[in-house]
Amino acid sequence: MLACFVSCRYYAGMKDITVGVYGMGRFGSFWAKLLSDSGLRVAGYNRSSRPFPEGVRRAGKEEVLASDALFYCVAISSFDAVLERTASGIGGETLVFDTCSVKLRPMQSMKERLPRSCDFIGTHPMFGPDSAVNGVGGLPLVFSPGRCSHDRARRWVDHFSGMGLRVIETTAEEHDREAAYTQGVTHVVGRILGELDLKESIIATSGYKRLLQVREQTCNDPVQLFMDLQHYNPYTHPMRVELTAALEKIMTLFAQADLPDE
Amino acid sequence: MLACFVSCRYYAGMKDITVGVYGMGRFGSFWAKLLSDSGLRVAGYNRSSRPFPEGVRRAGKEEVLASDALFYCVAISSFDAVLERTASGIGGETLVFDTCSVKLRPMQSMKERLPRSCDFIGTHPMFGPDSAVNGVGGLPLVFSPGRCSHDRARRWVDHFSGMGLRVIETTAEEHDREAAYTQGVTHVVGRILGELDLKESIIATSGYKRLLQVREQTCNDPVQLFMDLQHYNPYTHPMRVELTAALEKIMTLFAQADLPDE
Repeated sequence: MLACFVSCRYYAGMKDITVGVYGMGRFGSFWAKLLSDSGLRVAGYNRSSRPFPEGVRRAGKEEVLASDALFYCVAISSFDAVLERTASGIGGETLVFDTCSVKLRPMQSMKERLPRSCDFIGTHPMFGPDSAVNGVGGLPLVFSPGRCSHDRARRWVDHFSGMGLRVIETTAEEHDREAAYTQGVTHVVGRILGELDLKESIIATSGYKRLLQVREQTCNDPVQLFMDLQHYNPYTHPMRVELTAALEKIMTLFAQADLPDE
Repeated sequence: MLACFVSCRYYAGMKDITVGVYGMGRFGSFWAKLLSDSGLRVAGYNRSSRPFPEGVRRAGKEEVLASDALFYCVAISSFDAVLERTASGIGGETLVFDTCSVKLRPMQSMKERLPRSCDFIGTHPMFGPDSAVNGVGGLPLVFSPGRCSHDRARRWVDHFSGMGLRVIETTAEEHDREAAYTQGVTHVVGRILGELDLKESIIATSGYKRLLQVREQTCNDPVQLFMDLQHYNPYTHPMRVELTAALEKIMTLFAQADLPDE
């Protein structure tokens, strides 16, 4: 009953709009399905013909770009070029969202490349098909309005909240500054673990089990994402300097471990 | 009622024996308190006069060494020397346990240095004051009888199980082979994270929160433990080679992240 009440309250007024998802890769498909499950009418566009999830209609590029709300789900490193190529096809009243894991750069890009009539909002759904395997309840969505009326932005905050997401309204700068460490370090550790032949173990400690989970969640993402998180977030440089020093310190300790007993 | 039933069943016959803990440092104090809470009569010995936990009686070295059951809670790297120094004071019927986080080396040491009349069992409680902050129910204890009658070993397996521990009976070799990766990698990651200035964050993902927990659990342990885990486990060398290669690969990727856009 509560679920119904929440649905009725948050989804009112949203169920008639058309929602387009540009880029139906691993994350795009997951995100489109989530939006569709929340009661929205979702159409997706993808260059290749990979299967779409149930509830998401396959559509042409033109139709998707002209949706009332348009979500770009493309790699950070291709976002500028994709936006440049598609901007002229976007509807005059379309509200554009990016879903990139960095925020300053794509929001600057939307400001520069979108038609003046288009509103835009930066979002970062801080989860994916792996971390949301048990549902998205309580998972964080960063929400950063660029050019958008308060009412229009508020309807989307309410809608995302109604989906169970924990909406975090913040600036692109604040996001990138924090994410440089939080997601940067997590992906680095996950990648390091991904290089090792680690298995489940009968003597696994709780710490080891946590690391296996981190590895699974990060290594299913493409390595391009890992590189893009580093390259396109201007705050990651000091983190890399610190982390490199830490890795070198550990490797020095390692060398000592191979010395004979005193 | 269940707790009482379990207590009565498992602790019968054990409540009259004397238990000594040699080395009342951070882990020794935690372990002595746990044994005391399980209904055993526990006396501890420590060189320094740091406070003992409630329920654990302070005693002289001679008395502790002559206990019916004697647990050594000392650093891996000092175990050989401590055993050498104290072996002549150990009671003729005393059952000796080590609690080291590696197993082959201390068990070989007990075999060589203990009087022939002494039974001994290798144990590795795979938790500590940090990971057991919510109790020890279900946490793993590695149990590896060296020289001990089946019945005597069985009483201790039953007692540890009655404390809620998940007793894993295995060989020292099997333990060290698995632990080289499970605890080795966990401590390495924890130490790397410990070098960084990581904070809680409003945009923390579940993966990042797991890493903060790993950092907390490992960095509260002395750095000596980290080094000893590497040095005294003969199976850690290949892990270090693999891990060093992984760290170098990540650092190479890092260098690329600082290149300008293509």
